[in-house]
Amino acid sequence: MRIESGKQIEHLGAVRIHPVRRVLELDSGTIPSQFKESVGPQRIERDVIAGIQQKMAIVLPIKGEGLKVFEGVLCGVPHDCLMIVVSNSQRGEIDDFKKEQETLNQFCTTTRRNAIIIHQKDPCLGQALADCGYSQILDEKGLVRSGKAEGMIVGILLSLVLGKEYVGFIDTDNYIPGAVWEYAQHYAIGFTLSESPYVMVRILWRYKPKISGELYFKKWGRVSEITNRYINHFISTKGVFETDIIKTANAGEHAMSLQLAKKLTYATSYSVETQELMSVFEQFSGMSPILDKAVAGKGVDIIQTETINPHIHGEKGEEHLIQDMLMPSLSVIYHNPLCEDTTKELITKQLVELECISPGGEVPQLKMFPPPEIAILRSWPLS
Amino acid sequence: MRIESGKQIEHLGAVRIHPVRRVLELDSGTIPSQFKESVGPQRIERDVIAGIQQKMAIVLPIKGEGLKVFEGVLCGVPHDCLMIVVSNSQRGEIDDFKKEQETLNQFCTTTRRNAIIIHQKDPCLGQALADCGYSQILDEKGLVRSGKAEGMIVGILLSLVLGKEYVGFIDTDNYIPGAVWEYAQHYAIGFTLSESPYVMVRILWRYKPKISGELYFKKWGRVSEITNRYINHFISTKGVFETDIIKTANAGEHAMSLQLAKKLTYATSYSVETQELMSVFEQFSGMSPILDKAVAGKGVDIIQTETINPHIHGEKGEEHLIQDMLMPSLSVIYHNPLCEDTTKELITKQLVELECISPGGEVPQLKMFPPPEIAILRSWPLS
Repeated sequence: MRIESGKQIEHLGAVRIHPVRRVLELDSGTIPSQFKESVGPQRIERDVIAGIQQKMAIVLPIKGEGLKVFEGVLCGVPHDCLMIVVSNSQRGEIDDFKKEQETLNQFCTTTRRNAIIIHQKDPCLGQALADCGYSQILDEKGLVRSGKAEGMIVGILLSLVLGKEYVGFIDTDNYIPGAVWEYAQHYAIGFTLSESPYVMVRILWRYKPKISGELYFKKWGRVSEITNRYINHFISTKGVFETDIIKTANAGEHAMSLQLAKKLTYATSYSVETQELMSVFEQFSGMSPILDKAVAGKGVDIIQTETINPHIHGEKGEEHLIQDMLMPSLSVIYHNPLCEDTTKELITKQLVELECISPGGEVPQLKMFPPPEIAILRSWPLS
Repeated sequence: MRIESGKQIEHLGAVRIHPVRRVLELDSGTIPSQFKESVGPQRIERDVIAGIQQKMAIVLPIKGEGLKVFEGVLCGVPHDCLMIVVSNSQRGEIDDFKKEQETLNQFCTTTRRNAIIIHQKDPCLGQALADCGYSQILDEKGLVRSGKAEGMIVGILLSLVLGKEYVGFIDTDNYIPGAVWEYAQHYAIGFTLSESPYVMVRILWRYKPKISGELYFKKWGRVSEITNRYINHFISTKGVFETDIIKTANAGEHAMSLQLAKKLTYATSYSVETQELMSVFEQFSGMSPILDKAVAGKGVDIIQTETINPHIHGEKGEEHLIQDMLMPSLSVIYHNPLCEDTTKELITKQLVELECISPGGEVPQLKMFPPPEIAILRSWPLS
């Protein structure tokens, strides 16, 4: 692969926010260039990418997705990555989970690879999480709560237990296996661009072709635009200059080094991706005292990359209102302890304008999940 | 990459027709499998693919395509392949060709690669073709005739002159750069699956998602279905068993070893891909005496592969009737010297049914272009 050269990085305490870098070539070949590669676009060798992918888990959250689409996604995940499918599909008489298991099993047999599939509501999973004290994620029956965020946390925990170094997320409603493949390449490239063990890679879709799911796309486009605006306002209040560096506040396609992922606080629903950023800022921007000296020393890199492939996914059956999608993202910015009054006022105004809250109403607070490392520390207290 | 294991091959004289094989994994990783690979799906190493791509030209015919889509296609072509863009876009006050040149130039600068772009109506090109006696492709002004088939032949000739071993074709209206990348992988894989220097690789799209250009897709689907039917009937009349082995009679995405490509006879318009097959049958099926003993000895492989990525392309402005698209393909089957009366009768019946010809009417014959090697032989008479 080949990626645009780096531009001006923004610093916020120990956090380095990299501006979006476009990927320029899906496949930059095998012959080393005769040109000097030190300036301009950067070529990343296949072996370097493969080296990282061997240490990477790809978490695939699924809920009642069409099996053909699911299979296409599997075909796109590079062989060297470990796939962890976290399903919240229906069971019972019509057992969608069983079909997913069969599809995965068939795929792994023909392609000779290993993978893990788990149902989010598996009682053993709930019990294990209760045993290691990570009960915030459980419902009153002791099962993992529903929700993609909860599934993602299960994926992070499994990646940690399995000794992986990196975890990436890819939605299973993607129609383009080639785009799935590209995301996994971006994740690996992002990790090579950082020298810190604390890294997050967030993907910006190049464009969404004007062919489908338009309504859904437009909504996400609008939601992302607004979330980016307020997160950038949040950052701008911390310095002298205004910035619009964050373009990926709602990036569902993203990856983290597990060293970083295990330290973050997560939120439910549509806010999970925004909250990951807010948690990084809260802990490592130096506005509050940085408790983790190791991270403070190495710094945290937030890498943003833009894809070559467009993003095309299935149309959702459920109708989501912009309001429902936007409120959680803005809530986690608003309720972050570092959020200043000017940002809070603007967010309140925006939410009133969009009739998400009534004038004078409160911005609701979301359920939060503590850093996954508390579960790991309690299970292996000596590690 | 990993591809399904081979199935029963059909033999027709020196021609081996391989049934469609599905590609199972876009990226089969870097770690050699612990399992025995000799049975079941076949894994093809990256280095092997790269080795072939270094000897391959990818011909990109273009005519007034959106520049963003064109640029996306460029981003998908593997770096190791040489790109040859053959344009028939408008020139003059609004010079689309110039914009294509600029886009290609910009792309090649940032990605440090070489490419060739030529306008189909370039008078120097016409003159060069006249000089080497390949004037069948020229119009009354001495310029190359319009048409994608003519552009493809220019691409083949340039690939030959540049000393490449393989040539592949990819349309420039493809919305999915990851699919473009996949086609180039298929081509390379196809060539590794054959031991003969005379090989053709034809791609079957896995599916066309129900999201766009539906009308156009359905038409192609119907046209392909009918063309496949009669080409299979043609083959069936040559043996004892019926066959439906050909699934790619109209495959626009295909590649050939230049050893083979230079020996075939080409036709105009929508029939070009069908005629390539018919020309192979005519020359090498042994029904007529095989004049080329070298080819007879090694045999010709026709490899068909099915993609992982769906095919999504732009909607065409022009309205094409199924009749207009189908007639040329059926015409080249009908007028092939080996076509038997039973097949001819069925084709005539089909064309009357679809009101392409009136009852008792003749199936029109298309303009044909002689094997490109005659041009090459005449320019370098000693080679």
